[in-house]
Amino acid sequence: MLDLPVVWAEDCLAHLPGAEIWVGVRTPGTELPERATTLRDAVLAAGGRLVPAAGHDDALVRTVHDPAFLDHLASVHDSWLAAGFDQDPGQDRVVPYVFPTPAMLDGLPVREPVAIHARAGRYCYDTMTLVGPGTWAAARAAADAAQTAADLIAAGERAAYAICRPPGHHATRGGYGGSCYLNNAAVAAQALRVAGVERVAVIDVDAHHGNGTQAIFYHRADVFYGSVHVDPGAGWFPHYAGFADETGAGDGRGANRNAPLAPGTGDAGWLAGLTEICAAVAAFRPGAVVLSLGVDAAQDDPESPLRVSVDGYACSGGLVGELGVPVVAVHEGGYHLPTLGALTVATLRGLIDK
Amino acid sequence: MLDLPVVWAEDCLAHLPGAEIWVGVRTPGTELPERATTLRDAVLAAGGRLVPAAGHDDALVRTVHDPAFLDHLASVHDSWLAAGFDQDPGQDRVVPYVFPTPAMLDGLPVREPVAIHARAGRYCYDTMTLVGPGTWAAARAAADAAQTAADLIAAGERAAYAICRPPGHHATRGGYGGSCYLNNAAVAAQALRVAGVERVAVIDVDAHHGNGTQAIFYHRADVFYGSVHVDPGAGWFPHYAGFADETGAGDGRGANRNAPLAPGTGDAGWLAGLTEICAAVAAFRPGAVVLSLGVDAAQDDPESPLRVSVDGYACSGGLVGELGVPVVAVHEGGYHLPTLGALTVATLRGLIDK
Repeated sequence: MLDLPVVWAEDCLAHLPGAEIWVGVRTPGTELPERATTLRDAVLAAGGRLVPAAGHDDALVRTVHDPAFLDHLASVHDSWLAAGFDQDPGQDRVVPYVFPTPAMLDGLPVREPVAIHARAGRYCYDTMTLVGPGTWAAARAAADAAQTAADLIAAGERAAYAICRPPGHHATRGGYGGSCYLNNAAVAAQALRVAGVERVAVIDVDAHHGNGTQAIFYHRADVFYGSVHVDPGAGWFPHYAGFADETGAGDGRGANRNAPLAPGTGDAGWLAGLTEICAAVAAFRPGAVVLSLGVDAAQDDPESPLRVSVDGYACSGGLVGELGVPVVAVHEGGYHLPTLGALTVATLRGLIDK
Repeated sequence: MLDLPVVWAEDCLAHLPGAEIWVGVRTPGTELPERATTLRDAVLAAGGRLVPAAGHDDALVRTVHDPAFLDHLASVHDSWLAAGFDQDPGQDRVVPYVFPTPAMLDGLPVREPVAIHARAGRYCYDTMTLVGPGTWAAARAAADAAQTAADLIAAGERAAYAICRPPGHHATRGGYGGSCYLNNAAVAAQALRVAGVERVAVIDVDAHHGNGTQAIFYHRADVFYGSVHVDPGAGWFPHYAGFADETGAGDGRGANRNAPLAPGTGDAGWLAGLTEICAAVAAFRPGAVVLSLGVDAAQDDPESPLRVSVDGYACSGGLVGELGVPVVAVHEGGYHLPTLGALTVATLRGLIDK
């Protein structure tokens, strides 16, 4: 019996990216609305209690993300259509074409481009994270779901699960990418801080490093970020972050911990990495944990080379549960529809059974 | 009679990008090999003397560009094929998908990605500048042509014209983009410096700002960069550079001058802008000039909203010629095949008739 609140936001289904542009080639993409409904059906069937996401104003989200980025994301698709980028059927989605990389700028400051087709690349760092008419509503709903789950913890629940779609952990303070738009886990962590939890830890078990979450809290001592993921140094997304030597900076020195794993790593190595992360979290003595729950480290998932089993995921929930503090689980990745539900239920069961 | 040496490198035809990816959509592109043969035929018919480009070793190019970038560009297509990105016909060209923008990195240093599909975006800042099997040979040949033209000036010629394709002025010290791979104008300017010219000025009349050339010399007092171009602040490429307030930095303070123009500007406004640039160049007292000769400011060109006539281009050559110093003309943009030759011949004639 999965006795925990499951936060659901219907608007999470409104995001229809329609495609990804991968090295110049249009592909169908795997971050589909069916992911959310599959998760919902599975956790409710297992006994979860449905809680509709509550609407929140932007105050908290604007402390996690740069307001200029939020204003851009909220309006970019309308601006895109207004500029006439809807000539071809199915090709009205926002895709940048020029990006202000260090190689381009060579020391110049980043200006705000005037043309929307250029501004798109100011705030989006890849070509696989498309924006359509429902993207903002869905991203905002996912953040609301995360914040609602944090509210439940603040009100006394020991665990809550938010079905966040689109996922969030690749979204940085000032930009989106990696199929993520708003950083739901960071919103949950910040909501817990605002609710009075002095120290919050984010534990990220998604197959990919949560470069966005890391970046948002990298200089802060009050939020620890720890992640177990496939090694970016072995050629995996997000490529530029997720290395073991990234340990925080400034006030945040020591409050960041990465456990990168070789492709092909299965239960034993993955759980050893997570055990290391959890030990660091325990030493941090958080008042609550946000679990970035991506299940794409599973062996059947098309988006990662890790080989974790359902039992491995169940054990991961147990490791987090053993910390003995309230947990907000926020869904991240996981793209294999036939196993998505079982992996997630197993993790949550492991979490609350401890 | 167009009595000047015309430097030609047959390998410039080897670059076949095949397409551009523009806001996620594959388009045929306009930077075609026919541009080079059209230019060659026109200037030879007008009386130009063909001079084959001489091969040069990489020593000079490696002082203009970051050696790591050069090594990448020389090998990226082979690496791309080796990684298996050639499944689809015509889709074996290198196109990045993730870019280490400031929004992504948020302060982290730029690491060298391991996977070639990620490394592509470390050194290329857009999705419209594809690399195929002949790209490196052509880019290297274009740089050789520019260097050969500079050699001719060092040997006593008053003017020389290099048919450089692909163009170069958007290529920065450490990256490529905007259909440019190696910065031919910067190579010519540096070659003149090495040949003993104390001060060199680059005058850029291409419709677009030469952000690469500007960046390469931005901190240097010995090379002046001046450009007249369509205003990036009105929404035009390169979007992040080309503003009037960019005047150089450090030792190079005052040695950079931009004259951005409103879309629709024709002969009068364009020549007024160029007159301003030439006055600044005269005050700099260069020993030689490199003319970044793009003819895409012309009224029929598909790639810019400027409206310059053939007579306007002839006058531009005159303004540069009036400086009274030797000139290396290096071809940049210009995409309207029916007028490309006449525009270029008119400019060069204006240049040498003064």
